Amino acid sequence: MAETAASDNVARDEDLAFDVFARYCPSRGTLEHVTGRWGGLTLGALYEGSLRFNELRRRVDGVSEKMLSQTLHALERDGLVHREAQPTNPPRVDYELTPLGREVAERLLCLIRLLEDRMPRILAARERYDSARGDASA
Amino acid sequence: MAETAASDNVARDEDLAFDVFARYCPSRGTLEHVTGRWGGLTLGALYEGSLRFNELRRRVDGVSEKMLSQTLHALERDGLVHREAQPTNPPRVDYELTPLGREVAERLLCLIRLLEDRMPRILAARERYDSARGDASA
Repeated sequence: MAETAASDNVARDEDLAFDVFARYCPSRGTLEHVTGRWGGLTLGALYEGSLRFNELRRRVDGVSEKMLSQTLHALERDGLVHREAQPTNPPRVDYELTPLGREVAERLLCLIRLLEDRMPRILAARERYDSARGDASA
Repeated sequence: MAETAASDNVARDEDLAFDVFARYCPSRGTLEHVTGRWGGLTLGALYEGSLRFNELRRRVDGVSEKMLSQTLHALERDGLVHREAQPTNPPRVDYELTPLGREVAERLLCLIRLLEDRMPRILAARERYDSARGDASA
């Protein structure tokens, strides 16, 4: 399946046709769209169901209109998000995950839930790290 | 467990004490360390075993010395990476995942493997997107 698109990569075997560790592999760009500052939160928010632009903007707390728009374009181009413009006046635009986007969002939410769950340990680690280095906040 | 650090967040229930969707939740910073441009690749590389700085730099193709150093500090501070300096001359420094870092890296690799596997579909989606918009590369 991968052979058509991996023309520039020397694949060691079929499973490794795409490799995010290789600088020029296109999978690295997609990993960045999916896990970038806003991409991950956008996919996570849409996992709950389709949303309009402004609903999405409220859910992804802190994102600017411009950044959300750029993020959605990159995810749409990668085939992870589907944009549906309703022929109403004013036009209503809904965003939803594609089946591929749902697969990706599931894996990402699995990571997000783990991190949320482990935050007490992570915050304790930060305190130990800072106090060992004498970085008092004073 | 989470109640001490989530003072500014209104938690809907215990599972949501930390919420990456909330702008000021500290879990968002950790998500960015883990999934940032180099954080994810660094965790993925260390999942295979402990590595020295220069080994890691070769594995994470394209990272600069400065960025790898910053990435490792952030991951060490979050308690995901352990830095072990051997008392040799010259000093030898090994980096390895902590048990918490292994948990996080497992989830992340699950996402990375899915993306690598789905790249043919993602590249086909990009072509459809670009040709529908007449963005010929000429």
